[in-house]
Amino acid sequence: MAEPNNREVYRASTYAPVNIAVIKYWGKRNTTLNLPTNSSLSVTLSQDDLRTHTTASCSSSFTDDTLSLNGSPQDISGARTQACLRELRQLRKDVEAQEPQAPKLADMKLQIVSENNFPTAAGLASSAAGFAALVRAVADLYHLPASPTDLSRIARQGSGSACRSLMGGYVAWEKGKQDDGSDSLAYEVAPANHWPEMKALVLVASAEKKDVSSTAGMQQTVASSTLFEHRAKEVVPKRMKAMEKAIHDRDFAAFATLTMKDSNNFHACNLDTDPPIFYMNDVSRAAVRMCEAINFSYDRLICAYTFDAGPNAVIYYLDDHENEVAGTFKELVGGVKGWEGKRGAAVKDGAKLPEGTEVVAEILKKGISRVILTGVGDGPRRTEDQLC
Amino acid sequence: MAEPNNREVYRASTYAPVNIAVIKYWGKRNTTLNLPTNSSLSVTLSQDDLRTHTTASCSSSFTDDTLSLNGSPQDISGARTQACLRELRQLRKDVEAQEPQAPKLADMKLQIVSENNFPTAAGLASSAAGFAALVRAVADLYHLPASPTDLSRIARQGSGSACRSLMGGYVAWEKGKQDDGSDSLAYEVAPANHWPEMKALVLVASAEKKDVSSTAGMQQTVASSTLFEHRAKEVVPKRMKAMEKAIHDRDFAAFATLTMKDSNNFHACNLDTDPPIFYMNDVSRAAVRMCEAINFSYDRLICAYTFDAGPNAVIYYLDDHENEVAGTFKELVGGVKGWEGKRGAAVKDGAKLPEGTEVVAEILKKGISRVILTGVGDGPRRTEDQLC
Repeated sequence: MAEPNNREVYRASTYAPVNIAVIKYWGKRNTTLNLPTNSSLSVTLSQDDLRTHTTASCSSSFTDDTLSLNGSPQDISGARTQACLRELRQLRKDVEAQEPQAPKLADMKLQIVSENNFPTAAGLASSAAGFAALVRAVADLYHLPASPTDLSRIARQGSGSACRSLMGGYVAWEKGKQDDGSDSLAYEVAPANHWPEMKALVLVASAEKKDVSSTAGMQQTVASSTLFEHRAKEVVPKRMKAMEKAIHDRDFAAFATLTMKDSNNFHACNLDTDPPIFYMNDVSRAAVRMCEAINFSYDRLICAYTFDAGPNAVIYYLDDHENEVAGTFKELVGGVKGWEGKRGAAVKDGAKLPEGTEVVAEILKKGISRVILTGVGDGPRRTEDQLC
Repeated sequence: MAEPNNREVYRASTYAPVNIAVIKYWGKRNTTLNLPTNSSLSVTLSQDDLRTHTTASCSSSFTDDTLSLNGSPQDISGARTQACLRELRQLRKDVEAQEPQAPKLADMKLQIVSENNFPTAAGLASSAAGFAALVRAVADLYHLPASPTDLSRIARQGSGSACRSLMGGYVAWEKGKQDDGSDSLAYEVAPANHWPEMKALVLVASAEKKDVSSTAGMQQTVASSTLFEHRAKEVVPKRMKAMEKAIHDRDFAAFATLTMKDSNNFHACNLDTDPPIFYMNDVSRAAVRMCEAINFSYDRLICAYTFDAGPNAVIYYLDDHENEVAGTFKELVGGVKGWEGKRGAAVKDGAKLPEGTEVVAEILKKGISRVILTGVGDGPRRTEDQLC
C-alpha cells in the first residue's frame, strides 16, 4: 500500500434519521455521560422526510477539528462533541494497532459538515439526528467494526436521544445500571419492516425558540418534581414492557394508549417542576382534543398524539387510516406548507370534521404553520454524496 | 308562648365567603359523602368583594322545598342538597325534642333564596360559598347550637370545599379516617386577624364554561393518573404541615413556595389523567411567568399564583407589596373591570414591568377580561337583609 499523500483527504458520508419517542427520555442520573433516569423507546422516522446529512473527512493537511451545520461554523470544543470524537479516535487507534499498514487517521484533524433538511430547534429532535450522523460518519470514515449498539454508547454522550437514531424501526434505549454507562445502550425492538404501516404527521405549532432547553429542563425536573421519581421508578418500567409487547404484536390500540399516556405523564412532570416548565400550549391542547375526537368518532383508537420538549404534535396512525387521520388535519390546515408532494397528494380531501370540534378546529387553523408527513423508517444510510 | 300562626314565616339570612385553596382538594375516596383523598387548606376571601347572600325561610304554609339562585329556580332534589337538608332537619329535631315548646320548624318546607355578587362558574368557587351559605342560613333559622366545625361536616356533603367557607381566615379541611365521614371536618388554622395583610388579586381569564367539571374531573384523575396516589399519600401530607407552620409564622416566602408548587402539582395530576384535563391555558401560563418575573425582579417571593379548576389566576401577596404586585397587573390590564372603587384606586399607577416580559404582557393584555381585588376575610356573617 502506497504511503498516503500528505494532501490526501479521507471521507465518509451518511444520512441519519430523526426519532420521536413514545416512552419519553427525561432526566439524567449522570449529566457528563448522559445516563438517563429511565429507559425510553422511539420510532425512527423516514429519512426521505427528515434527516441530517453529514460528511466526515480527515487529512494530515487539516490544522483543526471543525464542524459546520447548515453552512454555519459550530463550536466543536463542547464536552459533548469532544467526548464523541475522543471515543471514536480511540476505537480507530485500536484498528490501527491491529492493522499497522492502515493510515493513521486517528491523529489527523477532522472536518465535519452537516446539513438538516428540516428546521433546526423547536422540538424536532435535530440534536438526535445530528449526533447520530456525526458518530456514524466518523465510524465509517474510520472503518470501525462497531455495531450500531456499540456506537449508541458513543452517540449517547453527544445527545442522549441520539443513541436511538443509530437504528431504524422501533428502538429502545436501556437505561443501564453501570456507573460508567457501558450498559446504557440502544437496541432494536423491531425493524421498520416488522410494522411498516406506522405513519406520523407532525403539526408544527411554532418555530419559536423554546421556553426552557431540554438539557436544562430535565435536570430542573429531577431536582424539584415530587412526582418525577415515581415516573422514573414505577411508571416507565411497566410501560417499556407493555410498549415492546404492543410493537411485537402490532397492537395499535395498546401502542396508542401508552404513547398518549406517556406524553401526558412526561408533561405532567414538567408542570410539577419548580419553576414549572410548559412545552405544550393552547395549539398543542387543541391537537390533543382533535385526536380524541377522531378516535371517538371512529369508536376506536386510530391515532395517538405525542409531544416532545416543544409545542409540536406528532400524531402516529396506521396507513389504513390515513384519510381519517391526516385527512382530517388536511381539511383544517390544508393550506400550510407540507401537503405538497406525493405523500400529501395521497391524502384524500373532504374528510368530515368530528362533531363538536369547532372551537379546537379554529385554534388549529390559526396555530399550525406547517406539517410534515412521514412514517417509520430505517437506520443511517451510507451515501457517496459528499458535502466537502 | 303563643301558638304560631299558620302563616308565620321564620327567616334567617347570612353572607358566606368564597375560599381559594393553597393546598388543593382533588379526588374523593367516597363520592356520596364527599370524603376527600387528601387534606386541603384555603384562605377565606373577604365577603366585601365575593360572597353568597342566602335567606332560608320556613313556614307551615309552604308546600315545597324550593331553592333559587340569582333569581332562577334551582333543582333542590339533588342528592347533595338533600343530604344537607336532611342533616340540618335532624339536628333541628334534636333541638325540638329538648325544647318541647319550640316551633316545629323541621317539619315545615323550606324556601331558600341565594344571590352571588360575582359571576357563577368558571372557577370562582361559587359552589363553596353557596353551600356554606345554605347550611349556615338554615342552621341559624333552626337555632342550632352547632359550631362551624360541626356544620362543616354537613356543608362538605353539599360541596367538598364548602366546608372551608364556614370559617374565616386560614382554614384546613382534615380528610379524616372514618368511613362515615364523622372526622372529615374543617378547622381554623388561624383567624383572619392573625395575618390580615394577605391580599388576593383574581385575574379572570375566561368566563367560559370549563372543559371538564371538577366533580367529574377529580374522579377521572383518581381512576387513571399514575401520579395522583403519590400526591395524595406523600406530597400533600408534608405540605399541609409546612403550610400550617408558614401561616403560624406569617412566613410569606414559605407560603408562596408551597402555594405555587401545590397548584402546579395539582394541575400536573390533571394532565396525567386519561384523557388529560387542561384547566390552565396560555393566559394562565403567562400569569405564572409574570409572577415569576415580579419575584425575580424584587429578588424575593412577594407574590404567589394558584389556579383552581379553571384558567383564572389567584395571586396572593402581602399588603406591603400591593404596588409591586397588583400595580404591575394594573399597568397591564388597568382598563378592564375591577379596578374601579376604593381598593383599585389605592393601587398606584406607574409600576415598571419586569424585564423580558413583553411577550407574556401581550398575552395577559389580550386574555384578561376582569380583575377582582380582595384579601383574607372572616367567616359567614348573619344579616337582617332578607331576600324573601
